[in-house]
Amino acid sequence: MILAFAGGVGGARLANGLARILPAGSLTVAVNTGDDFEHLGLHISPDPDTVLYTLAGLNDAERGWGLAGETFACMAAVKRLGGEDWFALGDRDLATHIERTRRLATGETLSQITADFAARLGINQAIIPVTDDRLRTLVRTPAGELSFQDYFVRQRCEPAVTALVFDGAETATPSPALATLMQSPELQGVIICPSNPFLSIDPILAVPGIRDWLRRRRIPCIAVSPLIGGKAVKGPAAKMMAELDLEATPRAIAEHYLGLIDGLIIDRADTLQALGECHITDTLMRNIEGQERLARESLNYLERQRRA
Amino acid sequence: MILAFAGGVGGARLANGLARILPAGSLTVAVNTGDDFEHLGLHISPDPDTVLYTLAGLNDAERGWGLAGETFACMAAVKRLGGEDWFALGDRDLATHIERTRRLATGETLSQITADFAARLGINQAIIPVTDDRLRTLVRTPAGELSFQDYFVRQRCEPAVTALVFDGAETATPSPALATLMQSPELQGVIICPSNPFLSIDPILAVPGIRDWLRRRRIPCIAVSPLIGGKAVKGPAAKMMAELDLEATPRAIAEHYLGLIDGLIIDRADTLQALGECHITDTLMRNIEGQERLARESLNYLERQRRA
Repeated sequence: MILAFAGGVGGARLANGLARILPAGSLTVAVNTGDDFEHLGLHISPDPDTVLYTLAGLNDAERGWGLAGETFACMAAVKRLGGEDWFALGDRDLATHIERTRRLATGETLSQITADFAARLGINQAIIPVTDDRLRTLVRTPAGELSFQDYFVRQRCEPAVTALVFDGAETATPSPALATLMQSPELQGVIICPSNPFLSIDPILAVPGIRDWLRRRRIPCIAVSPLIGGKAVKGPAAKMMAELDLEATPRAIAEHYLGLIDGLIIDRADTLQALGECHITDTLMRNIEGQERLARESLNYLERQRRA
Repeated sequence: MILAFAGGVGGARLANGLARILPAGSLTVAVNTGDDFEHLGLHISPDPDTVLYTLAGLNDAERGWGLAGETFACMAAVKRLGGEDWFALGDRDLATHIERTRRLATGETLSQITADFAARLGINQAIIPVTDDRLRTLVRTPAGELSFQDYFVRQRCEPAVTALVFDGAETATPSPALATLMQSPELQGVIICPSNPFLSIDPILAVPGIRDWLRRRRIPCIAVSPLIGGKAVKGPAAKMMAELDLEATPRAIAEHYLGLIDGLIIDRADTLQALGECHITDTLMRNIEGQERLARESLNYLERQRRA
């Protein structure tokens, strides 16, 4: 059994590579829920959905979010009725949020719903939210505290970030399947996917028990740097690192994960700033072959850590 | 000021004719909410929406429900996720339910939301739910009591109807604009549109105060029979009348509205069964011209009652 921690697009891509090359049922992807929010009365889980859609092969690879072949008739009609249309919800994507919201209202947990969605979409690996409890990433800026989607979508990551707050984290607990896996003798290694360390991985680590478990674990854990040539492939990771007085280098990523990982996979473009144990390769996943290749290298690297 | 009571398609058509030939702001359509229901976590108001869409010119005239040019991508995705797809919700129609549900949750009333939707869709007459309170039509059948949409959509009106129950009616009150209009010296007449008397009009009359007001009113009130040649244009009115041991004739309609109306407009096809005061014409509204023609005849007939 392999456990992968993932956030949005980059994380979903490596998770997909892992899902494809590992035997069915031997991968669990624990996904960030700090980006979750309520919008138009619906519970939206952007990162779990990106992972679901990507592993189901339904994602729009070009646009980088949502479903392939998506239409936006509902949003246009919402706009006509004076509703909020700043967060683009596709007609097919909407079904996920409507069904999730309906089922949450009947008392089902995010874990149960996500697992069922994964099964119905034909995914043969486990996808779980990192927690079933309320966890909300808040972004501190000079102009005040913003909800994550306000910062990320509405304000297009323009405000400078001074700190991140994971509201609800203190009282959250790992989702049942994650808690079980953390104690399982079958778990052979952990991979932190190339997701934004601050926005996607830190909320996961903020759930009590997870960071401590990573520190104490006896199985190997590696991370894949989300940077390529000092820049994020997508998203505000590099911009945010500058605002937080960090250099956008593998060294800063390694220091961020200090004590939690045994090794870091970095892109060839970043070798000059490499420090300590790392594996250098191409980390850009242009297509499914690229996802499988990086997944294979990640598993091999994990295995080398286990033997070291 | 003219007040029209309406339910679904037939009611919406005459309401549209009235809306088009009356000066802006001089028509109020009070719509049945007994068909309202919660589905997929959304508050759906089928009759108010049919009236909204028809008066906005956005309705699908051929299909008889929903919006023209509608797509059903979301429903197909709901089905893929194992959700309920027996009630077809179009992608554009869904926006109405999402926005309504969201706004209800913020404390707005159905009346406020419906009025705002009407304004945003460019409708220059008033559309109001008959009540802002919970009102649910239940259908008694030999096999037990069914919710209205279960009977109407899921079971396609197949079960025999032994009685109708308007759950919540006893404690409901007329919506504020309707209550005001009922007391207004400006109100010149009432038209009961050609909607199913049992399913669309009776729930309106079950709201305390409305039936009594119709009995006591000093302004004229006429109804348009929903039957043509002893059959309903659409829907189960005639079938239901047989099950309730009523003949599907203008006489039965007139007796149903006894004491509430001054006259009945009936179709030429039903003249053999006519009884008492009635106006005979073509009541089938094939297109907008037909809607306007019947609306004009209704207003003229109403005026004749006022002078009588």
